[in-house]
Amino acid sequence: MKKINFAVAGLGRIGKIHLENLLRMEGVDVVATMDPLEECQQYARDKGIANTAGTFEEMLGIAEIDAVLICSPTDTHADFVELSAKAGKHIFCEKPLDLDLDRVLEVLKVVKDTDVKLMLGFNRRFDKEFRKVRDLVKNDAVGQPHLVKITSRDPGAPPVSYIEKSGGLFLDMTIHDFDMARFVVDKEVEEVYAKGAVLIDPAIGAVGDIDTAVVTLTYTDGSMAMIDNSREASYGYDQRVEVFGSKGMVQSNNNFHDSHKLYNKQGIHAALPLHFFLERYEEAYKTEMGDFVKGLQNGTMMPVDGDDGLQSLKIGLAAIKSLKENRPVKISEIG
Amino acid sequence: MKKINFAVAGLGRIGKIHLENLLRMEGVDVVATMDPLEECQQYARDKGIANTAGTFEEMLGIAEIDAVLICSPTDTHADFVELSAKAGKHIFCEKPLDLDLDRVLEVLKVVKDTDVKLMLGFNRRFDKEFRKVRDLVKNDAVGQPHLVKITSRDPGAPPVSYIEKSGGLFLDMTIHDFDMARFVVDKEVEEVYAKGAVLIDPAIGAVGDIDTAVVTLTYTDGSMAMIDNSREASYGYDQRVEVFGSKGMVQSNNNFHDSHKLYNKQGIHAALPLHFFLERYEEAYKTEMGDFVKGLQNGTMMPVDGDDGLQSLKIGLAAIKSLKENRPVKISEIG
Amino acid sequence: MKKINFAVAGLGRIGKIHLENLLRMEGVDVVATMDPLEECQQYARDKGIANTAGTFEEMLGIAEIDAVLICSPTDTHADFVELSAKAGKHIFCEKPLDLDLDRVLEVLKVVKDTDVKLMLGFNRRFDKEFRKVRDLVKNDAVGQPHLVKITSRDPGAPPVSYIEKSGGLFLDMTIHDFDMARFVVDKEVEEVYAKGAVLIDPAIGAVGDIDTAVVTLTYTDGSMAMIDNSREASYGYDQRVEVFGSKGMVQSNNNFHDSHKLYNKQGIHAALPLHFFLERYEEAYKTEMGDFVKGLQNGTMMPVDGDDGLQSLKIGLAAIKSLKENRPVKISEIG
Amino acid sequence: MKKINFAVAGLGRIGKIHLENLLRMEGVDVVATMDPLEECQQYARDKGIANTAGTFEEMLGIAEIDAVLICSPTDTHADFVELSAKAGKHIFCEKPLDLDLDRVLEVLKVVKDTDVKLMLGFNRRFDKEFRKVRDLVKNDAVGQPHLVKITSRDPGAPPVSYIEKSGGLFLDMTIHDFDMARFVVDKEVEEVYAKGAVLIDPAIGAVGDIDTAVVTLTYTDGSMAMIDNSREASYGYDQRVEVFGSKGMVQSNNNFHDSHKLYNKQGIHAALPLHFFLERYEEAYKTEMGDFVKGLQNGTMMPVDGDDGLQSLKIGLAAIKSLKENRPVKISEIG
Repeated sequence: MKKINFAVAGLGRIGKIHLENLLRMEGVDVVATMDPLEECQQYARDKGIANTAGTFEEMLGIAEIDAVLICSPTDTHADFVELSAKAGKHIFCEKPLDLDLDRVLEVLKVVKDTDVKLMLGFNRRFDKEFRKVRDLVKNDAVGQPHLVKITSRDPGAPPVSYIEKSGGLFLDMTIHDFDMARFVVDKEVEEVYAKGAVLIDPAIGAVGDIDTAVVTLTYTDGSMAMIDNSREASYGYDQRVEVFGSKGMVQSNNNFHDSHKLYNKQGIHAALPLHFFLERYEEAYKTEMGDFVKGLQNGTMMPVDGDDGLQSLKIGLAAIKSLKENRPVKISEIG
Repeated sequence: MKKINFAVAGLGRIGKIHLENLLRMEGVDVVATMDPLEECQQYARDKGIANTAGTFEEMLGIAEIDAVLICSPTDTHADFVELSAKAGKHIFCEKPLDLDLDRVLEVLKVVKDTDVKLMLGFNRRFDKEFRKVRDLVKNDAVGQPHLVKITSRDPGAPPVSYIEKSGGLFLDMTIHDFDMARFVVDKEVEEVYAKGAVLIDPAIGAVGDIDTAVVTLTYTDGSMAMIDNSREASYGYDQRVEVFGSKGMVQSNNNFHDSHKLYNKQGIHAALPLHFFLERYEEAYKTEMGDFVKGLQNGTMMPVDGDDGLQSLKIGLAAIKSLKENRPVKISEIG
Repeated sequence: MKKINFAVAGLGRIGKIHLENLLRMEGVDVVATMDPLEECQQYARDKGIANTAGTFEEMLGIAEIDAVLICSPTDTHADFVELSAKAGKHIFCEKPLDLDLDRVLEVLKVVKDTDVKLMLGFNRRFDKEFRKVRDLVKNDAVGQPHLVKITSRDPGAPPVSYIEKSGGLFLDMTIHDFDMARFVVDKEVEEVYAKGAVLIDPAIGAVGDIDTAVVTLTYTDGSMAMIDNSREASYGYDQRVEVFGSKGMVQSNNNFHDSHKLYNKQGIHAALPLHFFLERYEEAYKTEMGDFVKGLQNGTMMPVDGDDGLQSLKIGLAAIKSLKENRPVKISEIG
Repeated sequence: MKKINFAVAGLGRIGKIHLENLLRMEGVDVVATMDPLEECQQYARDKGIANTAGTFEEMLGIAEIDAVLICSPTDTHADFVELSAKAGKHIFCEKPLDLDLDRVLEVLKVVKDTDVKLMLGFNRRFDKEFRKVRDLVKNDAVGQPHLVKITSRDPGAPPVSYIEKSGGLFLDMTIHDFDMARFVVDKEVEEVYAKGAVLIDPAIGAVGDIDTAVVTLTYTDGSMAMIDNSREASYGYDQRVEVFGSKGMVQSNNNFHDSHKLYNKQGIHAALPLHFFLERYEEAYKTEMGDFVKGLQNGTMMPVDGDDGLQSLKIGLAAIKSLKENRPVKISEIG
């Protein structure tokens, strides 16, 4: 089989994870990286990467590249996707494509007009826990789904400086849960009601965001989903899904450090959940990249495509509007 | 200690449970019962009850009665409570006092104008699981509560003929969860958003009710609660509560038939939840009645009083309005 | 149906439990009790018992007695069973019949020569957890049983003065597990190897007993059971059974105060097991007495008979011999 | 830091795992492999290994080798360890060194007379579950250990042809549990009592082995351990440890495919344990090799040394003798 040549743009935390996973895969060559920071370029050189560019354009100029990973800051995503598509490179882009709906539509049009494949980085779809839930739902283990419950709580809030530019809780954090709500039952959302509060850190409120939220989604068939979010769960990363249907219910749980139970006079004690997404989704990132590579090799459909990014963005924008106006908002009101 | 003389009005399923629990208690005499059905009167005679009246008035005429249990149909509650209060009898009344807010206010005024004590039958407050959650919250084990999650699903819908007169899902079923939402964190609710659907049985829709619901409550301090309801959980009665706060989270689980785990080629298998409220809350009913008796013996405050009934009714009425108008409704809009 | 008239001999902790359970049963009259202590006689009078004798002979003289419960100290069991059998009374006797094998054989012969029924108080057989295990094994859920594992640990050792006369760990405590080993798989034991140590309290060693033990049983078909005992589990009463077979495994767990889980920075915390046998086996005691009553009413076989007591005693005596001689001992070597 | 040059002898299942783990490590170069099979040599060439020898001697002749991994069949271990030690190479050897005690003592003497380090491949010591148990015991979380319980059951028996040469259940399978018994409480074993049976496959009995076993170990301080083994657990690989002590108990559980729980009319269903050792100990193998490399880099003690292999072998030989003679056997009787 012909090897696929990859370039990785952006060598932050997540870019490095993808790069290292690619390096361990069969049928793959990483021929280039891009990062403006010298230390990241050095990191890539140490990994044996031949071309370690400082700008995206420089990187894109390398002829043998088949596919590009875009792991650079959010505000570069749209431009880089467009450039890559126009250059005929397949694209894996970290979510979100952009925080602006019109810009996303524009970019998706560019991609559609080329032959390149685009995959969005909704990593949780590749987690074995959520996959099992989806598979059981798909295989009719719970019958018709009536209720979906998603718990998603971070172990700690990011710096306010980050939050300020993040698009807010719904576009930065809940967007994963919006995608999950569509993923586990394979249904589209019609209406959103979002309620939020600043209960953890007033500084988050000071920049116009919230840190705690409850969202009700109504699917087009009238069934419903509930999401609860917190920026700070003292006990660690909390990622659970429950689907209740006409024939049963399926739940997935957090992943924990280990399975030990300690019994003593004070009670029974067990280990905490894995700290945060890097630990919890370590395997999911591998599966995600593997599925992207397989999709390219076999010419099959991408497991998460541009439309998935678009739908989650719309739900997020509806949630923002709902929170502001304290009323349910139809997806059809957006865009 | 002087024995307290009880009369039990209404010997349906729940009346019998209370009667039998009273019969096993120290410091208590059941001197009378009331039920129009001959077979219920026979049942009471077999239990050794001296006076087995056919009407409430007849029963109330028995001089030595100190306290009355009202377990008769909902539409008799208000009248019987008024009659009992005016006769100077202490009252335990099954929920709800009435489905009409004005009538409830009227009745509570009558009670207030007498010296009698009134306790409402929110049995779940006496369940050891929920008590443990409340105790841990009270003792600051989770810090400031941010989110409350209540799951409440019945194993099967009652007959449509019952549903028709029940006041609807929110006043018949969710009202327990509204009380639970106030109970576990000891806070008042300010706003309600309710979403519902008919996903189980169109006949329920045909009489104007829903069978599946998701409710968001906002407390006066901005923290939030989520409730999900279904009239039919295929796997049995599902009663769980979770409170998430600044310092931790506490969850209670269903009670199960037993603790066995069977491992075989197909997976690991465990027992189902106890079938329904009679099984799950068997102990809670005993504790409830015991606490009522203790309250009378010691002259202390009732653990669930008329105001608790009033608040849950208001939340229920707000939920009905919210569902109808598809918008969040303030409690202050009610009554 | 004719009521069965009971007499209860011995109103210690366990005698009171049986008495109160009998008082709540249909078809039963408790017409007499026996206890030398005045306070116990007063207790019985308060419960409305007509005859509150001070000696067993006095009690046995009451003509209308159909059945006798023997809950008096162990060293009275054999004599009281004999007297009751000769008087034509059915018998429920707390375990053990006697610590001496010859005396037990003698007593069983006396019982056999009469028409009376004899049930032994192996209360754990009536616990829903162990019943479920036995039922699943019986229904072939685990296939051919290969291994049985029984954990049985008390929350604290009894006074040394009690231990001294108890017959030792194997006859006082493990005897329940020997019965369990026979019960869950319905097989007989052929050989015993017991290993023990004094790890908790040297005072227990000083009176010639052990406080910690591990026992291997071999069934007649070559399959095996393991028992582990401790007189002091800091976290409370530990009662678990596991049966592993050709098609699967079934486990039962302890019963806990409640199901709560508390998540905080330190970990996940859950409630302890119920403290001791009175709490854990509260329901089992009711079922046990109910099954005795049903056996008498229907004239069916007793669920635990004299032979069950005999077999457990033999295993216990073999365990004592094994510990002393540090070698496996065949049951056939006993008696 | 100077890179350490490795050679891997034997490219079967486990040799490949170690090789691939080494290839991903920093500070490591794999400069040679040895396997008589051409396809294994090709496998190594595909991985970029420079020298792919067909005999151990040929491989050992490569001057730059610092350390050797011995993953070849058991009957080559002793010779290869001796050759490597004499050649001044550090050694990682899969368990066991040899099935013959005298040969093991001989080999260990040769190793001792050189300066090379020797680590034995008891992979379970590197599993996070068992490490947690050991750490908690070490940190006094359970106080003085009184009882250790080890469950170790394989999902299926190996071919009889393998069993025949394996040294039997105790040296092939239980030997891991003997090591675990020493590891989790850091104590030495004084006496062994083993009971076994052929309950799964008569063909195993026909070659003189057993397929089901129960072993009681007594530590030098009088505390005890119990091990139960089966060659065939229908539900998959079962690897659990429990340590009970004066202050508490700690348990570790199996690892499962995922955490899902499916509730339906039939019960609650969960995922099976990971299939077998390759899946369960995937991470442990990485940690093991990482610790070996670290030990070499830092010149620290090996986490599992020759004496650990020796002690487990002695316990295994005592178990064989105990089974044969049906009596407890002292370790001091061996060798």
